[in-house]
Amino acid sequence: MTANNQTVVTGKLIGVGVGPGDPELLTLKAFRLIQQADVISFLVNDDNVSQARMIAGEAVTGAAFEIPLLMPMSKDRTLADKVYDQAAERIKQQLYSGKNVVFLCEGDPLFFGSFAYLLERLQAEFVCEVVPGITSINAAAASIPTPLTKLTDSFAVVSGRHSDERLRDTLINHNSVAIMKAGKSRQRILSALNDTNRLEDASYLEYIGRDEQFIERDVSKLPNEAGPYFSLFLVTNRSGEKR
Amino acid sequence: MTANNQTVVTGKLIGVGVGPGDPELLTLKAFRLIQQADVISFLVNDDNVSQARMIAGEAVTGAAFEIPLLMPMSKDRTLADKVYDQAAERIKQQLYSGKNVVFLCEGDPLFFGSFAYLLERLQAEFVCEVVPGITSINAAAASIPTPLTKLTDSFAVVSGRHSDERLRDTLINHNSVAIMKAGKSRQRILSALNDTNRLEDASYLEYIGRDEQFIERDVSKLPNEAGPYFSLFLVTNRSGEKR
Repeated sequence: MTANNQTVVTGKLIGVGVGPGDPELLTLKAFRLIQQADVISFLVNDDNVSQARMIAGEAVTGAAFEIPLLMPMSKDRTLADKVYDQAAERIKQQLYSGKNVVFLCEGDPLFFGSFAYLLERLQAEFVCEVVPGITSINAAAASIPTPLTKLTDSFAVVSGRHSDERLRDTLINHNSVAIMKAGKSRQRILSALNDTNRLEDASYLEYIGRDEQFIERDVSKLPNEAGPYFSLFLVTNRSGEKR
Repeated sequence: MTANNQTVVTGKLIGVGVGPGDPELLTLKAFRLIQQADVISFLVNDDNVSQARMIAGEAVTGAAFEIPLLMPMSKDRTLADKVYDQAAERIKQQLYSGKNVVFLCEGDPLFFGSFAYLLERLQAEFVCEVVPGITSINAAAASIPTPLTKLTDSFAVVSGRHSDERLRDTLINHNSVAIMKAGKSRQRILSALNDTNRLEDASYLEYIGRDEQFIERDVSKLPNEAGPYFSLFLVTNRSGEKR
């Protein structure tokens, strides 16, 4: 773009994964790009807390301009779309003025990450880059530690929001399965594990790499109540059965 | 264990993921633990090359004792088992003498990683830890960049070694699919993509983050020949169809 015959180079939008919780699981590249950023942006919740900003804390020099984006806790996608629309406009202003904007994402930016929604709004007009991050799934397997997949194992990721039938089919057809967003669906997931004879293959993990981390290797011991949003079941092929 | 009434504390075995190729995708933790290691170990191929050792190069101070493990290119699992048996014995000697051993793995140590085989041989006797690494799948999505999964997408990972039926079923049932080890199976994978009407959802990637990196977003343009071992198809839900 030009202004007064002077070419202004637009900035780059960079989605940076900061991993699931442990600040030491940032990559060298993520750390460097956050340090060098002109502008950093991130979601904050109703309590004004940003997990991503907290995880990235040591990389933030204080020199960057910060754009916190309030994302209210809600299942209303229209509301979320509106937040992302407004966020894209604020980020655009920075990019037009030649600033590089680093958007911080928990885990990996493109794996159930919020960055997807900014990418789809901005990638037609601006250079966009992504720095992959450690996912909660890989961190979960490491924290047990148990092999997630070997050789020709097949692996699937589903969510506690999927139907009972989908959960059962996935558990039957794949050697290893991660079930994300397991909090509210704990009882349904335990039933599906029981129905498919995979209770003994399963571990349960909450808040991996954070102070509140909780791991239960024997899922039959889990209390009959809902868990938090950041929880998952990891089902691995302990028995070695072919599927 | 005791020797001459003096207690010797055994060392720790630490599996460290170094990511898919770009040395800057090491985590801060991986970098630190490799720098501090008494002993580092890694697989080398018939040409005496270790990808993992190369990726970790800048973190290796030169102070660590190195145990390269020759893994001949072969599908013979008996041979591989023998290599891991001998490797475990060599690593044990170091652990008994109180040294911490860091085993370097491309990608993530527990996601189709060689570390699983050392873990199963040594975890009953020694403290074992794992530092997760960026997988080639997350790096692949970042390099395009395209969202791998959003909201309630389901995601599956299969291998070019799976049957045609398994490939087709997975492509039909999951929004997003990564097909690893795609080299020799390129034609079979393209057929499965065509049969399931997902050619346009697919991208093909080789050697992500390395000098030889190659990306083809239009997989119908791929030549009718085999690709290298380190290649994958990424199939994402570009059309937004529900599955």
